[in-house]
Amino acid sequence: MAVTAATSRPVADHRRFAPFHGVLVPALTPFGAELAVDRPAFLGFCRWLLEEGANGLAVFGTTSEANSLSLPERRSLLEELVEKGIPAARLMPGTGASNLPDAVELTRHAVEAGAPGVLLLPPFYYKNVPEDGVFAYYAEVIERVGDRRLKVFLYHIPQMSGVPITPALIARLVKAYGPVIAGLKDSSGSWESTAGFLKEFPDLAIFPASERYVVQGLAAGAAGCISASANFQVGDIRRLIDSGEGNERVSRVRGVFEKFPLIPALKAAIAHRLGNAGWRATRPPLAPLPEAQAKELIEALAAARN
Amino acid sequence: MAVTAATSRPVADHRRFAPFHGVLVPALTPFGAELAVDRPAFLGFCRWLLEEGANGLAVFGTTSEANSLSLPERRSLLEELVEKGIPAARLMPGTGASNLPDAVELTRHAVEAGAPGVLLLPPFYYKNVPEDGVFAYYAEVIERVGDRRLKVFLYHIPQMSGVPITPALIARLVKAYGPVIAGLKDSSGSWESTAGFLKEFPDLAIFPASERYVVQGLAAGAAGCISASANFQVGDIRRLIDSGEGNERVSRVRGVFEKFPLIPALKAAIAHRLGNAGWRATRPPLAPLPEAQAKELIEALAAARN
Repeated sequence: MAVTAATSRPVADHRRFAPFHGVLVPALTPFGAELAVDRPAFLGFCRWLLEEGANGLAVFGTTSEANSLSLPERRSLLEELVEKGIPAARLMPGTGASNLPDAVELTRHAVEAGAPGVLLLPPFYYKNVPEDGVFAYYAEVIERVGDRRLKVFLYHIPQMSGVPITPALIARLVKAYGPVIAGLKDSSGSWESTAGFLKEFPDLAIFPASERYVVQGLAAGAAGCISASANFQVGDIRRLIDSGEGNERVSRVRGVFEKFPLIPALKAAIAHRLGNAGWRATRPPLAPLPEAQAKELIEALAAARN
Repeated sequence: MAVTAATSRPVADHRRFAPFHGVLVPALTPFGAELAVDRPAFLGFCRWLLEEGANGLAVFGTTSEANSLSLPERRSLLEELVEKGIPAARLMPGTGASNLPDAVELTRHAVEAGAPGVLLLPPFYYKNVPEDGVFAYYAEVIERVGDRRLKVFLYHIPQMSGVPITPALIARLVKAYGPVIAGLKDSSGSWESTAGFLKEFPDLAIFPASERYVVQGLAAGAAGCISASANFQVGDIRRLIDSGEGNERVSRVRGVFEKFPLIPALKAAIAHRLGNAGWRATRPPLAPLPEAQAKELIEALAAARN
């Protein structure tokens, strides 16, 4: 791929990206008795996110506690979503794992289920690993899956994975696998990082993780955003992307969530909205938001949305 | 458990610890064609480590690339070792995982296979997690396995797991589960850290990870060591523990390995010793030691052992 300087583009340009653009939601995973996945609640929530305006669902992301699920859980949940009518074409499942066999199995399974792209974490146990090793992981997944339908979205979340997706790695992967490397989710939380990816890789679908950056991101050539807090305000983010309206409110709400442990806070907010306290459950090592903090959160969200 | 000041003990006192004391080896896992586990080579290597003097095998540790193996691989390898004559009583398998269901399944499986203890990583995807969440993970594993034979060795390796095992966490676990909490492996690499654990928890079997600290560790009440480089020099470490002799040479050899990426260097050293280049293979994200570095390593090891 030629690396050229990014040119400025109109906001609407994000629609040129296929198979995903706009706002994708890393859907929360609700847990019921004994911390088993509450499957009906998960299905209903995914349906609701799409009705509210989600362009797609990045199920099994960090916000989804995917690495707190077993491989059989991830497989069967994806199958259930598709069987029960969530369009596979709208799904970008997270399929990364600390071990190659699981990453290959999950990626192959997602492709066979009809997902047009996967969000692929680097292997996340070892730290300070060589670029050759991270390249080998992505290369092995792509080659072992060996399916022309596969589109890989690289997942840059160094504060969790411990393994950054560097520009040098992306360039090697693009050179080796061309259009299989479809895009990148930048969860670094840094606009400078996202701007750098946009400048170096204008042909990739780049998704910043925060809706704070969606307006400036789209202007600079981003494909949209894949935001944790879209679980709470996907409709508002979709309107912001489509019309440019509501940026301040969307950013205020995001700002509220950033003052709390993010995933437990999102679950507490959904629990409150649905009147279902079960939604507050998290799997270890996350812990549910304590009651007092949950009250604070709900009040701060109400104030931010006015 | 009463937390009392450690008293100085004779070296031989480590034998009071059951079920494990002395030198345990986090056995390397060899890979063959297409990075499949080379099962005959693994079995032969485990046998050799015991013949050389290993008191036990901490199979499926960090050095074993356990988190680069799938759950079915870990299960079936353990079964094969036991079926083919490695005494289960000598095994302390690593059974941690980023997700609770896998950690429960692997721990239960190890207990049922006859292993008298497991080395249990905290869940290692999320970072900056609350102590309540880490406690809940260990509590859920212990309660779901629900087997009186279970002995848990906590695994403190914050530079990889991102989740430290704090004294406050240990105290809570000991209070809740008593003798189920049998010990701790301290892979922090810091003697101050190990000395702190020894002082606060004199009744736990504490294993520093480096043989550099085994002499002073035993004098301060440690149970032995569980050292990566024991893969290369387990016989010498065993003699050091039994007789107090050879500390300088053992530390020199350890020092050589510390100048290289540890796991690839250990595999290169074993490959050279066995005349089997296949041993050099690692799974992504680790990469084999480049040829030039492997030569340097072999020369430095020869010099250090003189």
